[in-house]
Amino acid sequence: MNILLNDEIISRENVMVDIEDRGYQFGDGIYEMIRIYDGLLFEWEAHLERLVRSAKELMIPLPKGMEVLQKNIHLLMKESGVLNGSVYIQITRGVSPRKHHFPENADPVLTAYVREMERPLEQIRNGIKAITTEDIRWLRVDIKSLNLLGNVLAKQKAVEQGASEAILVRGDIVTEASSSNVFAIRGQECFTHPTNQFILNGITRQVVVRLMESTNLTLVETPFTKEALMEMDEVFITNTGLEVCPVIEIDEQLIGDGMPGYYTTQLQKAFETLLLELIPQ
Amino acid sequence: MNILLNDEIISRENVMVDIEDRGYQFGDGIYEMIRIYDGLLFEWEAHLERLVRSAKELMIPLPKGMEVLQKNIHLLMKESGVLNGSVYIQITRGVSPRKHHFPENADPVLTAYVREMERPLEQIRNGIKAITTEDIRWLRVDIKSLNLLGNVLAKQKAVEQGASEAILVRGDIVTEASSSNVFAIRGQECFTHPTNQFILNGITRQVVVRLMESTNLTLVETPFTKEALMEMDEVFITNTGLEVCPVIEIDEQLIGDGMPGYYTTQLQKAFETLLLELIPQ
Repeated sequence: MNILLNDEIISRENVMVDIEDRGYQFGDGIYEMIRIYDGLLFEWEAHLERLVRSAKELMIPLPKGMEVLQKNIHLLMKESGVLNGSVYIQITRGVSPRKHHFPENADPVLTAYVREMERPLEQIRNGIKAITTEDIRWLRVDIKSLNLLGNVLAKQKAVEQGASEAILVRGDIVTEASSSNVFAIRGQECFTHPTNQFILNGITRQVVVRLMESTNLTLVETPFTKEALMEMDEVFITNTGLEVCPVIEIDEQLIGDGMPGYYTTQLQKAFETLLLELIPQ
Repeated sequence: MNILLNDEIISRENVMVDIEDRGYQFGDGIYEMIRIYDGLLFEWEAHLERLVRSAKELMIPLPKGMEVLQKNIHLLMKESGVLNGSVYIQITRGVSPRKHHFPENADPVLTAYVREMERPLEQIRNGIKAITTEDIRWLRVDIKSLNLLGNVLAKQKAVEQGASEAILVRGDIVTEASSSNVFAIRGQECFTHPTNQFILNGITRQVVVRLMESTNLTLVETPFTKEALMEMDEVFITNTGLEVCPVIEIDEQLIGDGMPGYYTTQLQKAFETLLLELIPQ
C-alpha cells in the first residue's frame, strides 16, 4: 500500500511515524474519511472545508502539501487502482519532546491512504440494529479529532450486543451515534440534533438535509430524548460509509414495524439519484 | 535514543510505528510517566498497578514483554546513563485496518523510553501561577489514556496567559488540573476531589495523602467549588514532575498572601524526607 506523507507518495514500509508524534501520544490530530464512487471523490470540498475547520479549532497549522492535497489524493487513487473505496486523511500537530502544551517548532504530519470498499448494500436495504449508551465523550466532538476512545468503547459495546451501531445519549438527550448522525421521523417531522459542540456535523448529514427539501418531511433540528426516540415511526443514521441507513431495532425494541420506513426509503432513493447524477455513465 | 519496543531495546530510528496503530488513529492506548531519582524508579509498583488497571478498563490485552518490563526499563536506564529523569511507557491496542470496534487479532504495542530531567526546584520553591478553565474532557479520565486533547488545550490556554497550569472546573466543581491533582487548604482541612471517573488518581496524590497523616491536616475528599477554591488559605498541585508544588496565584488573584503556605511547605519537606529515605546516600 502506498501512503501520502505530506507531499510525497511512498510505500507503507517507509513511513516512519515517530513515537513522539503528538498524534501517537495525545491523539493531537484530526482526520477525514472520504468516499470514492467510480473514481470520484464524493463531497470533496465539504470534507476539505471541515478538515481546515478542525485544524483551526485545534490551532494545528496546515501542513506542507495542503495546497496540492487533492492532486496527490488523485495520484494515490490512480496508483492504487481503487475505483470504489475511501480515502483516509489524517493531520497531527507533529513531532516534539512530550509536553502537553503546543510545541513551538513542530511540523504537522499529514498521512493519507486509499482503500477498496463496496457499498454495504445489505445494511442499507435491510437496516441495522442499534443499542443506546451514555455519551461520555468530551465536549468538543464538533472537531473531527483523533480522541475517539468514547466512540470506540460505544461501538464495541454495540458489537458485543450483536448490534451495528451505538446511539449516544447525553443526560437524556440523543446526540448522535458512535460513527454516524441520527435522524428520527414522526409524522412528517424529521428530528435531528442541532449542530453544536455535542455532535460532529457529518457531511452525509448535510447532504441528507439538502435532499430532504425534495420530500414532504420538515426538518426539525432540536434536541430530543431517548424516550421520544423509541416512539418514532422511523429512525435512520447517516455517515460516509453507510450513506442513509435504516435503524430497525433499538435496544431490542422494534422501531415502527421493524422495516425500513417510507421516508427513509425515499431519502435513500434521493441519495442514489444524486450519486447517479454525479457519476458519468 | 534507545526505545523499548515490546521486549526489545532498539534505536529510535528503527522503531516503526504503523500509520494504522490504533494509538495513532484513535488515541486507543494508555501510558505512565515514572520518575527516576538517583537511578531508582519512584513508586514503580503503584505506576505498574495503574497501568494494568487502565489496560483492564479499556480491555487492552497486556503486551508481550509485560512480565519483563521492569527488567527492560532498568536496562534502558543503564544504557542511557540517566540517573535523574523519567520513564515514559505507552501501550496501544495495536495495528489493524481502521474500524472503531476492537480488532480481533491485533497485538498490543508497548513503547518506552527514558529522558533526563532535573527537579524543577524554582517552581517547587516559589510556586506557580494557574488559571481556571472549563473541564471539557470525557467522563473516564480515571483511565490514563492517550485521549488528551482536553488536557492539551487547557495547558496551552494557561501557557498563553503566562501561567504554568490550568485548573479544571466541571459545572462549578474543581476536578483537577491539566496534568496534576489539586489540593486546597483552609484552616486545618485539606480538600481534594474524591477519586472517581472525573479525576486521574495521581501516584503523587496518593503519596501526599499518606504523608498528610504526619501533619495536623485533615484530608477531606469532597467536591468543592471554584468559588471556594479562590478563598482557600493555600493551594497546591501534585504530579510526577512537580512533586508538591504551591499555587500562589489563580486567575491573577493571590492565594493567601501569594507565598507558598505553611502546610504546603510542611508536605514538601515530608516528601523530600521520603526521597532521602529511599535514596541510599
